[in-house]
Amino acid sequence: MKSDIDRFMQESDIDALLIVGSARHNAAMTYFTGIVHVSDGYVLKKRNHEPILFHFPMERDEAARTDMQIKNLEDYDSAKLLKKAEGNRVLARAMRLKQIFDEFAVKGRVSIYGIGDVGAFYGLFQTTKDLIAEVELVVEPRTSSVLSRARITKDEEEVARIRKMGEVTTEVVAETAQFLSSHKAKHGHLVNGDGDVLTIGEVKRQINYWLAQRGAENTEGTIFAIGADAGVPHSTGVDDQPVEIGKPIVFDIFPSEDGGGYFFDLTRTWCLAYAPDHVSQIYQDVFDVYQKVYAALEPGKLCTDFQKLTCELFEARNHPTVLNTPGTEIGYVHSIAHGLGLDIHEAPRFRQEEGNEDILQPGSVITVEPGLYYPEQGLGVRIENTVWVRPDGKLETLANYAMDLILPIKS
Amino acid sequence: MKSDIDRFMQESDIDALLIVGSARHNAAMTYFTGIVHVSDGYVLKKRNHEPILFHFPMERDEAARTDMQIKNLEDYDSAKLLKKAEGNRVLARAMRLKQIFDEFAVKGRVSIYGIGDVGAFYGLFQTTKDLIAEVELVVEPRTSSVLSRARITKDEEEVARIRKMGEVTTEVVAETAQFLSSHKAKHGHLVNGDGDVLTIGEVKRQINYWLAQRGAENTEGTIFAIGADAGVPHSTGVDDQPVEIGKPIVFDIFPSEDGGGYFFDLTRTWCLAYAPDHVSQIYQDVFDVYQKVYAALEPGKLCTDFQKLTCELFEARNHPTVLNTPGTEIGYVHSIAHGLGLDIHEAPRFRQEEGNEDILQPGSVITVEPGLYYPEQGLGVRIENTVWVRPDGKLETLANYAMDLILPIKS
Repeated sequence: MKSDIDRFMQESDIDALLIVGSARHNAAMTYFTGIVHVSDGYVLKKRNHEPILFHFPMERDEAARTDMQIKNLEDYDSAKLLKKAEGNRVLARAMRLKQIFDEFAVKGRVSIYGIGDVGAFYGLFQTTKDLIAEVELVVEPRTSSVLSRARITKDEEEVARIRKMGEVTTEVVAETAQFLSSHKAKHGHLVNGDGDVLTIGEVKRQINYWLAQRGAENTEGTIFAIGADAGVPHSTGVDDQPVEIGKPIVFDIFPSEDGGGYFFDLTRTWCLAYAPDHVSQIYQDVFDVYQKVYAALEPGKLCTDFQKLTCELFEARNHPTVLNTPGTEIGYVHSIAHGLGLDIHEAPRFRQEEGNEDILQPGSVITVEPGLYYPEQGLGVRIENTVWVRPDGKLETLANYAMDLILPIKS
Repeated sequence: MKSDIDRFMQESDIDALLIVGSARHNAAMTYFTGIVHVSDGYVLKKRNHEPILFHFPMERDEAARTDMQIKNLEDYDSAKLLKKAEGNRVLARAMRLKQIFDEFAVKGRVSIYGIGDVGAFYGLFQTTKDLIAEVELVVEPRTSSVLSRARITKDEEEVARIRKMGEVTTEVVAETAQFLSSHKAKHGHLVNGDGDVLTIGEVKRQINYWLAQRGAENTEGTIFAIGADAGVPHSTGVDDQPVEIGKPIVFDIFPSEDGGGYFFDLTRTWCLAYAPDHVSQIYQDVFDVYQKVYAALEPGKLCTDFQKLTCELFEARNHPTVLNTPGTEIGYVHSIAHGLGLDIHEAPRFRQEEGNEDILQPGSVITVEPGLYYPEQGLGVRIENTVWVRPDGKLETLANYAMDLILPIKS
């Protein structure tokens, strides 16, 4: 949580955090600023000091809305700096950083964060390094950085915001189900009252429309993948294809607050009208594993323990998994869970790999998402909920939605 | 244009481009891949070779949709690399880059691009530099880089896509006008038939809804700023404030294709019901300058010439400008234009500053956006269109919308 930051900085011997870029779609920045229209700037946080937001003059009112200490970057006279740097914009920006560090007495190890042009910032940081002897620019390992450790647990306000996104998400999933169910089948796919074929693209457009109506945003897109496409976890579905009946549809929806705030993540697998037996069996396997893993989840254990458990449960039902068939593209091919918050994927990690020692902690918000994939058999199945590990150690699903496989349609 | 890339690489002595990150909301990557759901990977383009897309296995079908040469990053066995790197993820990634460079015989000057975690990539590039002697990672100046020079001019397909976004944008502006006009005034602000106050937040939500309906996305948000807020160019308006009549509203809308594709950019200033005289006068000044600058725009000249002209025209009407009052926050405070495409702000630049020698070229798509700002007088006015400098040198406004100041409301 935010309240841990100074302690973590102390533990990691970090003297200041420097976060660059926009306050939108930039989790490390938004974590401090909230969602405001500050399209470029810095957040500087010294250990045991309040963070300061550096902004450009046209965005001064937006910056002021953060209630943070703010500082206008034009105070450093960029035209003058650029002239001094003989038109070298990178050098001018490094010189401005030097002025900032001098003014605010920043010394020692400064850890850098933020989303931006990785080339431009590589240039800026290299130049800054050479220009400012008193400061060491530090890249903390992303899996154990101060902000990753802080963000791995959520405070009440954060959980409330994720929960609210869960309401929005399940409402939109309900709208989607109702919309699909209002269609009839013809030649194996959905058609509307006029006989027009319903395409995946149209469903996705409607989803964005229902999300926008509720003040949510869908920058990462939606997965609505049918049959063989559903058999590849991140295939998103092909827009101009018809919505087919009797085939599994993996519907994975992960919207956020408008402007790049907190996410929610939910997946259902639906068969429209009916489900073939082999799909129902696979579905049952995924559902059973979901229930067992959910029941087993408890804080204090290694996250990878739950991934191992998931693999073992699937293997006991004769599905290949990444545990004993590394690199498999059939069976169970991904991780059981991931943390989520201001990023759709954040700590903790559940993947079994060298160096992953993440512990499941009270206060984390994670997904639980077992799945099975057999693209050659034209199928994939995944079930996913977003779950809060409460401070008391109990689990709470942050938004509930029916888990039925079959979605009836108009007859 | 894309067809210029190899020539520009030759001119800048660049042997390869390495673009990192996602294919969504990452202009340099999307420029090659189009909009696909490849959330992490690389594009590698050697001079005089076709670009290659490196992707993760779960996104193999999405990658295949690009029609590019593709390569699965799991072919390099990340688990093995991570073990060899003793859990050091940065080193493992650098080792994978080394394998890639070896396999595809990449040598010499490699220019880096892409949007991502600037800290993580700073670490990766530093490690890579030390690991791979045959390759020099290069940061080209962002204003004259190979891709900036390529993207500064648009081919026919790109212009068609921007034009299509222009249609969407003007349709949504028309919806917004109609929606506002359908309200009545009460106590100086808009109310609906039930007497409920219309807020700025509600207008913005409707705008997102109308955009989503048309398959567009609005990740950068909308500016809908009234009165004193309109007097600060990037103030976006305060969500819970009522929509007031008789005050200038700066309505600046800049949506993109869904998934982070081509943008459009349009601004109108509206006074609901009536306009006070001093607002009308300011509006007339902005409108006249718009007409004059538009008429003066022609390819072959320095972009800063048009900024200078704009300042002179405003100063002739006794408005302070950035030309002779650097840093002014009243009068004319920004640039007359910017290029737009896969980024909302891209080359060419019009700002008068050290080192800006951008020439207006046939094939560019730019905004034209004079404005005047007097926050203490509770006003700001801006008019903006998106304009194509056609190959024949003539200008074409890519979507037209009425420029009236006063928007009547229901009586």
